[in-house]
Amino acid sequence: MQSSSAKSGKGDRGELAIIRHIRSHADRSNSTSVRLGIGDDCALLRARPGHELAVTTDLTIAGTHFRLDWHTPESAGHRALARGLSDLAAMGAVPVAAFLSLGLPRGLAHPKGRWETSWVARFLDGLLALARAHKTPLAGGDLSETPVPLADIVLIGSVPAGKALLRSTALPGDLLYITGVLGGGAASLPHLDRLAIESNAGQMGLNPSRIPKNLEPLLARHFWPQPRLAQGLRLRSQGLASAMIDLSDGLSTDLTHLCEESHVAAEVDPALLPVHPGANLDYALHGGDDYELLFTAAANVRMPKKIAGVPITRIGRVLPARRNQAAVTILAPNGPRPLKPQGWEHFSESASVG
Amino acid sequence: MQSSSAKSGKGDRGELAIIRHIRSHADRSNSTSVRLGIGDDCALLRARPGHELAVTTDLTIAGTHFRLDWHTPESAGHRALARGLSDLAAMGAVPVAAFLSLGLPRGLAHPKGRWETSWVARFLDGLLALARAHKTPLAGGDLSETPVPLADIVLIGSVPAGKALLRSTALPGDLLYITGVLGGGAASLPHLDRLAIESNAGQMGLNPSRIPKNLEPLLARHFWPQPRLAQGLRLRSQGLASAMIDLSDGLSTDLTHLCEESHVAAEVDPALLPVHPGANLDYALHGGDDYELLFTAAANVRMPKKIAGVPITRIGRVLPARRNQAAVTILAPNGPRPLKPQGWEHFSESASVG
Repeated sequence: MQSSSAKSGKGDRGELAIIRHIRSHADRSNSTSVRLGIGDDCALLRARPGHELAVTTDLTIAGTHFRLDWHTPESAGHRALARGLSDLAAMGAVPVAAFLSLGLPRGLAHPKGRWETSWVARFLDGLLALARAHKTPLAGGDLSETPVPLADIVLIGSVPAGKALLRSTALPGDLLYITGVLGGGAASLPHLDRLAIESNAGQMGLNPSRIPKNLEPLLARHFWPQPRLAQGLRLRSQGLASAMIDLSDGLSTDLTHLCEESHVAAEVDPALLPVHPGANLDYALHGGDDYELLFTAAANVRMPKKIAGVPITRIGRVLPARRNQAAVTILAPNGPRPLKPQGWEHFSESASVG
Repeated sequence: MQSSSAKSGKGDRGELAIIRHIRSHADRSNSTSVRLGIGDDCALLRARPGHELAVTTDLTIAGTHFRLDWHTPESAGHRALARGLSDLAAMGAVPVAAFLSLGLPRGLAHPKGRWETSWVARFLDGLLALARAHKTPLAGGDLSETPVPLADIVLIGSVPAGKALLRSTALPGDLLYITGVLGGGAASLPHLDRLAIESNAGQMGLNPSRIPKNLEPLLARHFWPQPRLAQGLRLRSQGLASAMIDLSDGLSTDLTHLCEESHVAAEVDPALLPVHPGANLDYALHGGDDYELLFTAAANVRMPKKIAGVPITRIGRVLPARRNQAAVTILAPNGPRPLKPQGWEHFSESASVG
């Protein structure tokens, strides 16, 4: 962890507080993999013999991936890390270390009042709590001043050489599955928009006490997505899946990616699709932010009904690619119709972040 | 390499152009280490048996680390990658792969006119040219819309297990050395400020034709810093150095870090310090952005005068830490005086980036 002004020797109190917070709250249980963490020019990681490293980076920008008036700082930090952990889950990899490059406007980097209740301390708390839950040490990063809060999260995972689950290895005849239920992440958006206006939410997100009881389960799905690491690991290690991708951008978009990379087509049966209570089929087909896994498996694989408590549901099948036809189709009363990718556009159109 | 709106299936032309540009221009000579690059949830890297991985992340923000009216896009891209490569050099590591998380305002992500001459294409050209020069494949990343251009660069390097050169292993009695000459990076700043105003520079940086011939060598030092990978590798592999750090923030700041991490003190002899033509002792002591290496070596080590064409100069010595005394001192006619860290504050005070 470096910091532009801490590095410059100005002894910047805000940034030193950030580094101290991370050093004291970061998980160290995985220290056999992280030989050297925060404090040198680089961190040093040990790869397990016979393993490959999976690496992913994800930018999270205020106004695009979260909103200061919707998401509590803890939720913003949780979601930033969840994006990267979900990418590791999709390869069947185990997390080894995370790196955080954090950009903050001056006001947030130098909070007035108690440090513990500042936006940045609460953001780090949310991020580090999820990191601890998945035994992922924060091994380094960078700090800088930026016009809006942003975080680039780097996740490094470990997977036996040649065994990672890819997007490109689905075969015609395979069946199509998902973990969990879909649509909850995106179905929350109109509620968040309304509640933030009604409660005149500030920069610390919606006050949880302003959230009606009946909306809590739906909004929890949005605020605290659970990366499916245990499920991805089991699907890989037991040889159950043939190809996999995470559902960060919505089923129609991510299934199209999987089909393109595998040079196959796929057919979704909407009657099979598990839809989150409070969502509808449109959200389940096109809404992003669910962070479930989408995977394929040979038809003769005996698929468990649940893995680590999360239901596994067959939602369709893989077909040979056909020239000049849509890669993804959905069953309808009059026969299959094309399912065009219409995923997640984040909040870029409606963003108004102070 | 993922992209928020490309992922969303909008088929965003600007962002697809960026990914295509990277895929067609990226170096693949190191493909034995990168088993899977851009196009899946994660990249997959192979670690060499018996090696550790060195990982570093560096944020580069317009207005803080470069200025749109000073730096050509190629220089901004070069400098973004140089920061990370220099961190690998300081460990004596060899680059394995780079990852780029790129944030762009809408106007730069969707350039009008010819793609090849757009800011983003030229930024990538500068970054990828330096990557090729150091056989560093760009193996993935992320794209998003941001208020100002920014890049988070992740560098992953390889180093024999237990052999990385650290900041924390200098010993009293060691001698203090640097590669190259100091002060050129920072001595350029007042010239850049003046030239940008005189030539009414726009968002593509200073026109090289507006740079007076006599300033070219000095400004080249600022625009195109050369990470000292060959020197760091040789210092490590031949066991010449005992501790090392890169000079990104200025000698006074980075030497203080090295002393703190090693629990030692150090004394600099200003008469020994090689100062870049056009710079002065203050720039050499406190100016950042030189990206030379600062290292220590046992007094009985026969140090080469040059490594891979770059001069090696002894500039002082390592002393035992003394309670309540400055970690770093500088020789002066009346005896040593404290050398306080006064490094690099980037352009944050004077930034005015459109």
